Amino acid sequence: MSADNPTQAMVGSDFDSRMMQRCLELARRALGRTSPNPLVGSVVVKDGEIVGEGFHPRAGEPHAEVFALRAAGERAKGATIYVSLEPCNHYGRTPPCSEGLIAAGVSKVVVGMVDPNPLVAGGGIARLRDAGIEVVVGVEEAACQKLNEGFIHRIVHKRPLGILKYAMTLDGKIAASSGHSAWVTNQDARSEVHQLRAACDAVIVGGNTLRLDNPHLTSHKEGMHNPLRVVMSRQLNLPQNAYLWDTKEAPTLVLTEVGSAPDFQKFLGAKGVEVVELPSLTPNQAIAHLYDRGFCSVLWECGGTLAASAIAQGAVQKILAFIAPKIIGGNHAPTPVGDLGLNTMTEALSLERVSWRVIGSDCLVEGYLSQKTL
Amino acid sequence: MSADNPTQAMVGSDFDSRMMQRCLELARRALGRTSPNPLVGSVVVKDGEIVGEGFHPRAGEPHAEVFALRAAGERAKGATIYVSLEPCNHYGRTPPCSEGLIAAGVSKVVVGMVDPNPLVAGGGIARLRDAGIEVVVGVEEAACQKLNEGFIHRIVHKRPLGILKYAMTLDGKIAASSGHSAWVTNQDARSEVHQLRAACDAVIVGGNTLRLDNPHLTSHKEGMHNPLRVVMSRQLNLPQNAYLWDTKEAPTLVLTEVGSAPDFQKFLGAKGVEVVELPSLTPNQAIAHLYDRGFCSVLWECGGTLAASAIAQGAVQKILAFIAPKIIGGNHAPTPVGDLGLNTMTEALSLERVSWRVIGSDCLVEGYLSQKTL
Repeated sequence: MSADNPTQAMVGSDFDSRMMQRCLELARRALGRTSPNPLVGSVVVKDGEIVGEGFHPRAGEPHAEVFALRAAGERAKGATIYVSLEPCNHYGRTPPCSEGLIAAGVSKVVVGMVDPNPLVAGGGIARLRDAGIEVVVGVEEAACQKLNEGFIHRIVHKRPLGILKYAMTLDGKIAASSGHSAWVTNQDARSEVHQLRAACDAVIVGGNTLRLDNPHLTSHKEGMHNPLRVVMSRQLNLPQNAYLWDTKEAPTLVLTEVGSAPDFQKFLGAKGVEVVELPSLTPNQAIAHLYDRGFCSVLWECGGTLAASAIAQGAVQKILAFIAPKIIGGNHAPTPVGDLGLNTMTEALSLERVSWRVIGSDCLVEGYLSQKTL
Repeated sequence: MSADNPTQAMVGSDFDSRMMQRCLELARRALGRTSPNPLVGSVVVKDGEIVGEGFHPRAGEPHAEVFALRAAGERAKGATIYVSLEPCNHYGRTPPCSEGLIAAGVSKVVVGMVDPNPLVAGGGIARLRDAGIEVVVGVEEAACQKLNEGFIHRIVHKRPLGILKYAMTLDGKIAASSGHSAWVTNQDARSEVHQLRAACDAVIVGGNTLRLDNPHLTSHKEGMHNPLRVVMSRQLNLPQNAYLWDTKEAPTLVLTEVGSAPDFQKFLGAKGVEVVELPSLTPNQAIAHLYDRGFCSVLWECGGTLAASAIAQGAVQKILAFIAPKIIGGNHAPTPVGDLGLNTMTEALSLERVSWRVIGSDCLVEGYLSQKTL
């Protein structure tokens, strides 16, 4: 259920769309594992049949087209290859895919979206066309861009995409006045959150959420990717018992300020928890650090104070709000976003590209903050 | 978009359903004007053609069937009459409709729903069947019950149906920290509120909403019904300038406690504002008074404190929450429902029969509080 659904001219045939959707399906098999690289899938089609499939499994491994061509073997000659992202045209850890496609003798290349890097965009496509290969660009483009929105944001803005996720009651509370919050939403919505975590590189909470909720922050499923669990804490006034200190389940990183609580840092180190000291601990510094680690997407699962600070510093681009149809009340019960310094309703930050989706008895609202500065 | 949509066996034919929907359309022409009576519509059908239509315009006027039979005249003989509510079987301000139908010689009666009063339910239907007339009951029953949910609640619980309506941002605020709230939602959602007011007998605010928002609380449309605008104020510490004191637009009632601010009471009286002193001013006392005035439905458009008190006293059965996809922030910005004394999320009041509907860029959530006591 989308409130804003502009119609777009369709590129390619229905068959092309189906094949591109298959590419996206394949791409998603590596969900959460490819950063700083994108998720890419590819299929080779000969005489209307898929003769080879592939996806990019992780950075350092071959690109999707290479696997698809390998699977197709000799049948790639004269075939059409579908790939969700423009084939690369430069020597990186692997040779350029454009050359591989030319060498394999494909006669047509169908591309989902061009490379988001303005410096290299269109280069692969131009190389293929120069070699006399027919190239179609923009099949299922919106879906291809959506799948790699984190990667695109990273390339364009030199920061990971920040997603603020929260769950609130219909009267706008993320917990009762006491701080108790288990659970706001139903099991279906919580499963959706687990899948969301599997798609992200990191999930961030503040010390307060750790103390109050003692969360796991994992995808809760064997074989699914777990994000790096990040705790932001200036003073490290954190409990010794916390699920996040159990790093067998998933890795944990604590971001703090230089020189804070050396003994607790030692304690964390012994648990296998990584500690990084930053000169000053702000959302902006935190995501700069996560960018340097090669991350494309960061999920903020924090309380209202840190969420407000992350929004104010431009560290949040996307909002995912789960709303449960229940009333908890409370004049001082916590709400999803703390002080932003906005005094009139007219100054409120509007969301764009908003969609509302019912999940079980709850609703998930998705939207993007407009890029105006606060 | 409903999260909970049980399938029901359909009563009657598609034609019957269409005719009953026409009855409901007719009934709605008197929206907001019939209390303490229900909204009722009726059509007479002969040889597949509508030959008479009617609806109940207001208490003291004839019932819907009477108008429909009058319009049909002689053609009522041997015809089928559709009526959204069971024909009455008692002498009230008008003679019983059951006798009128028998006298008119109709051969079949199709009824939307039985009378909600358990003491008289089924009496009209039995009388018709005794007279040898075929009666079908329950066509479009859910829609008939929905249209008259206020009337049904009044009959069954001896109280008007209480509807709490609010508009909040996606981060759960009904205003900025400053109290500024114009506007949370877009024009489409606000038009929906105006229609909602037209369907209610009264709309209630507290003194705080009056002071902060200076609302009109009207349906903002020529010819549309306006509810009685009710202000609850213990001390009458209210401004002299307020749209609500302009009673040319719509009537206003101020509920206060015995002996409060006699001079201000005189001021209000001179403006044409009715003042009623209650021994103690609570939501419960307020709706008891509105019940005595013959009201079926009351819209709470108040702030969080009065809303919480109304919920706690069982004066609210239904919630209508408008959610706007924008973020305003604010640690102390007001939220829709104040303190309910609930300490853990597990105690939250769950809504039943929940639906989510996109209106322009906003969403309207409708649901009913379950009847468990707080």
